Amino acid sequence: MIKNITILGSGNVATHLGKALLKEGYSINQVYSPNKDNAFDLANELNAMPCDDPKFITDESHIYIIAIKDDFIDKIAQQLLLKDKIVVHTSGSIAMDVLSQFDNHGIFYPLQTFSKDTAVNISDVPFCIEANNEATKNHLLALAKTLSNKVYEIDSEQRKKIHVAAVFACNFSNYLCSISEDILKENNMDLDILKPLILETAQKIQTNSPIAVQTGPAKRNDQEVIENHIKLLGNTEAYKDIYQLITDNIIKQHNGKL
Amino acid sequence: MIKNITILGSGNVATHLGKALLKEGYSINQVYSPNKDNAFDLANELNAMPCDDPKFITDESHIYIIAIKDDFIDKIAQQLLLKDKIVVHTSGSIAMDVLSQFDNHGIFYPLQTFSKDTAVNISDVPFCIEANNEATKNHLLALAKTLSNKVYEIDSEQRKKIHVAAVFACNFSNYLCSISEDILKENNMDLDILKPLILETAQKIQTNSPIAVQTGPAKRNDQEVIENHIKLLGNTEAYKDIYQLITDNIIKQHNGKL
Repeated sequence: MIKNITILGSGNVATHLGKALLKEGYSINQVYSPNKDNAFDLANELNAMPCDDPKFITDESHIYIIAIKDDFIDKIAQQLLLKDKIVVHTSGSIAMDVLSQFDNHGIFYPLQTFSKDTAVNISDVPFCIEANNEATKNHLLALAKTLSNKVYEIDSEQRKKIHVAAVFACNFSNYLCSISEDILKENNMDLDILKPLILETAQKIQTNSPIAVQTGPAKRNDQEVIENHIKLLGNTEAYKDIYQLITDNIIKQHNGKL
Repeated sequence: MIKNITILGSGNVATHLGKALLKEGYSINQVYSPNKDNAFDLANELNAMPCDDPKFITDESHIYIIAIKDDFIDKIAQQLLLKDKIVVHTSGSIAMDVLSQFDNHGIFYPLQTFSKDTAVNISDVPFCIEANNEATKNHLLALAKTLSNKVYEIDSEQRKKIHVAAVFACNFSNYLCSISEDILKENNMDLDILKPLILETAQKIQTNSPIAVQTGPAKRNDQEVIENHIKLLGNTEAYKDIYQLITDNIIKQHNGKL
């Protein structure tokens, strides 16, 4: 049974995960961050000892959760002398074998966007679990299930696909909303007027397949509206290009061809 | 004061609007639909008289709300003999002057996506109001304010811009989620795993500007991840094109150049 945990990192994932683990009764032994103030701040919140130098990371925990920027996971892992402990990282895009030096290693990936000041209901956060052996996998599944109702076994190949799917559904959708905000501001309006519609769009696909609830001029292949919209976008080439490309693909999706 | 209302149409907007108006104490006199069954069904729900022929639409209401498909608004308006009544339509993309034959005409546009079986909290729905004269405008504003806390005066030019902005934020975002679903299904997974993230993405921009909460590999200009994603998208040219175009524009937005 996992009881004692060391957290490497002090960012959004480390913070939300650390707090959730503490709340569930786990002991956080140490919080490591190369930035001393950050290490102290989060350690303080988690009743843990701070640490700003990898060589002082102790071997007293059952599990070491690396929740730092993708580019530094490899580097920090090289500095850990924890051969028989469980070592995991929380990244969506880094392969598991970056941790292959550890006998028991895996992935503990919470599939959510965390912000420092926004509370997240961790029991709704999907956790993607992978491990290099059965015993480790079972430990990680058990740990994740104490936090969340949505625990998935996901291999590294699938995790990469989830990540690219998330880029479309989340990063790109957010960018499209930034285009909307820009168009509205240019015309002395505010994104506020669209916010209920944006939320309803996301809520609708909680219970429906997106393709089944697609609406709009492209879905209807309404060329008159489409041409007017392209004219309205005026000289903003980037917006016109995106409008045209996505419209063409929605028409293909729903009408079989352009 | 508007008290008696005639609703032309029996679709999602007509239904949700009719029910909300009835609940607020208005009388719905007639419900018109060219489809007799639809006219009867909605009229029955709204304690109104059904009507399936425009020439039997009576002149006893204060306001006539045309909530039918864009393409038919003009045609139905031509058949109404209601010179001194208030006549409005509920469309986001049709100009107000399609109703210019009526002395008192305007727009009563609820900016939300309505589905037949999904309850919508009408008090959160933004209403966009426009009218050809001050008295009509005040009647429409008062009517909308009995339904919603979010009532905006929006002219036809602004309404067109809102509509194109909504296409980006809602129709196109929904399409991107259909790409995500397709990628996941191809890899034996389900959109369920992304749903909490999709909802959180929409919730985040209820209180933040999208540009301020942009995340992902394009935002970080992380070329290694971007190249891997494009490889992963394999032979699906459409997805690769969309990935590349939006990624390029996010990089430009956050880094000033490619």
